[in-house]
Amino acid sequence: MDAKPLNDLSQLCIHTITTKPWSIEEAAKNFSTEGVKGITVWRDALANRNIKQTGQLLRDNGLNIVSLCRSGFFPNKEKQKRKAAIDDNLKAIEEASELGTALIVLVCGADPSQSLEESRKQIQEGIKIILPQAKAAGIKLAIEPLHPMYADNRSAVNTLEQANDMAEALNSKSIGVAVDVYHVWWDPDLEQQVKRCGQNGNLSAFHICDWKTPTLDLLNDRGQMGEGCINIKQIRGWVEDAGFNGFNEVEIFSSALWKEDQHHFLHKIKENYLKYS
Amino acid sequence: MDAKPLNDLSQLCIHTITTKPWSIEEAAKNFSTEGVKGITVWRDALANRNIKQTGQLLRDNGLNIVSLCRSGFFPNKEKQKRKAAIDDNLKAIEEASELGTALIVLVCGADPSQSLEESRKQIQEGIKIILPQAKAAGIKLAIEPLHPMYADNRSAVNTLEQANDMAEALNSKSIGVAVDVYHVWWDPDLEQQVKRCGQNGNLSAFHICDWKTPTLDLLNDRGQMGEGCINIKQIRGWVEDAGFNGFNEVEIFSSALWKEDQHHFLHKIKENYLKYS
Repeated sequence: MDAKPLNDLSQLCIHTITTKPWSIEEAAKNFSTEGVKGITVWRDALANRNIKQTGQLLRDNGLNIVSLCRSGFFPNKEKQKRKAAIDDNLKAIEEASELGTALIVLVCGADPSQSLEESRKQIQEGIKIILPQAKAAGIKLAIEPLHPMYADNRSAVNTLEQANDMAEALNSKSIGVAVDVYHVWWDPDLEQQVKRCGQNGNLSAFHICDWKTPTLDLLNDRGQMGEGCINIKQIRGWVEDAGFNGFNEVEIFSSALWKEDQHHFLHKIKENYLKYS
Repeated sequence: MDAKPLNDLSQLCIHTITTKPWSIEEAAKNFSTEGVKGITVWRDALANRNIKQTGQLLRDNGLNIVSLCRSGFFPNKEKQKRKAAIDDNLKAIEEASELGTALIVLVCGADPSQSLEESRKQIQEGIKIILPQAKAAGIKLAIEPLHPMYADNRSAVNTLEQANDMAEALNSKSIGVAVDVYHVWWDPDLEQQVKRCGQNGNLSAFHICDWKTPTLDLLNDRGQMGEGCINIKQIRGWVEDAGFNGFNEVEIFSSALWKEDQHHFLHKIKENYLKYS
């Protein structure tokens, strides 16, 4: 059964990458003016900023800082690079603390020069290493399964089942899972795995956008809600039935939409969010 | 464990689409000259030909006609279009008979304007309808699971598990499954599902190519064996352990490789087949 209709913007969060042409200061002001209640911050948006002050600015604009996107990318054939990835993940935990968010989304990574099994092992090992620091900082790490078309070099965790397996194996309150409809919509086992994710207390984030036909680019041709074939309402229904009541985060990478007037785009996001999500 | 090395071309089959710039007559001559032993014929290659004579030409060149590629595309929201798909599938069965091959590969289809569940139902219904004619013609229909990035409009069957489920539900000697490494390499359940496929007598075809990093196009940027991250030897090992001893079919769609000199490309295919498959 589809979820109940969304009647307001109280659960609407937008990722800074969605309106990439805007600086984080512009995004904060414009999201706030338009009644958006949450923001997820991509790390590139924080470059050359005082992170604490930026966090304060977001809160001053009435925005909940839902998560920091993204760290991860643990696997590498070279030990030195795996070590560098750990350092970067620890840095992300510091950044999240300074920013004032309690969630980091992990894009787990994959190295095409080694097997998926090896990459998966290195992901789990990497998360284990950074887990104590996350716990100490009061920050949850959300494993995000990525669409199988990213299995070569972005994530060796490609189904919600795998993310659930990993989260349950790590067995910590500082571990969760991020469900993005773009990555998982095709999965015949999705309803069941969403349920399992909730039952185990791991359902930590919900990302939305749409899958366009045709999709012209593997990375930057996501559609906004309603432009594609994903039944977002159905998946939101499953996610809410599984106990999730957090933000619905609009995360869209689109070369085409980034070229549009971002104010117009933001209006369309609000409209489509209420209509199709 | 990886498969034993390939020492000769006795199991090498190439799809006509792989060397798309060549007519089927050119492909027949050049494959034959280079010692290729099998050919899979794409239906577009038969346009404006006498199909029986073309089949004879292929056999005269010492080529096994491994399969006809492709029919399927059963799902559609409109009944009239589903009916048209059935007609086209029956035509494909006739073409396969005339050509003299005992296998048709099914790209099952999907309609982005309806749910995947509905598309999956329509696929199974469609196959059921054409099954008696396939049986009468002595032709096997191989369900090919397609990569999840094609779930919108090419196939709602996206994992080998789903293909196995469907083949087992249809429960006929005229039904099989085609395993293409490009579509299934990322699947954590692959080894197990290949085993199951063989145990149930459904492992009917094995297609090879490679997944490049980066992949620049969802459709036409496949790599040749060795150019990417797929461990073809490992998957071939599983496929052979599951009882398959048919052709290894090179199926590559690549705008870049189609622009190359096709004789040079064919030499590289042979070399890479022995080295990386």
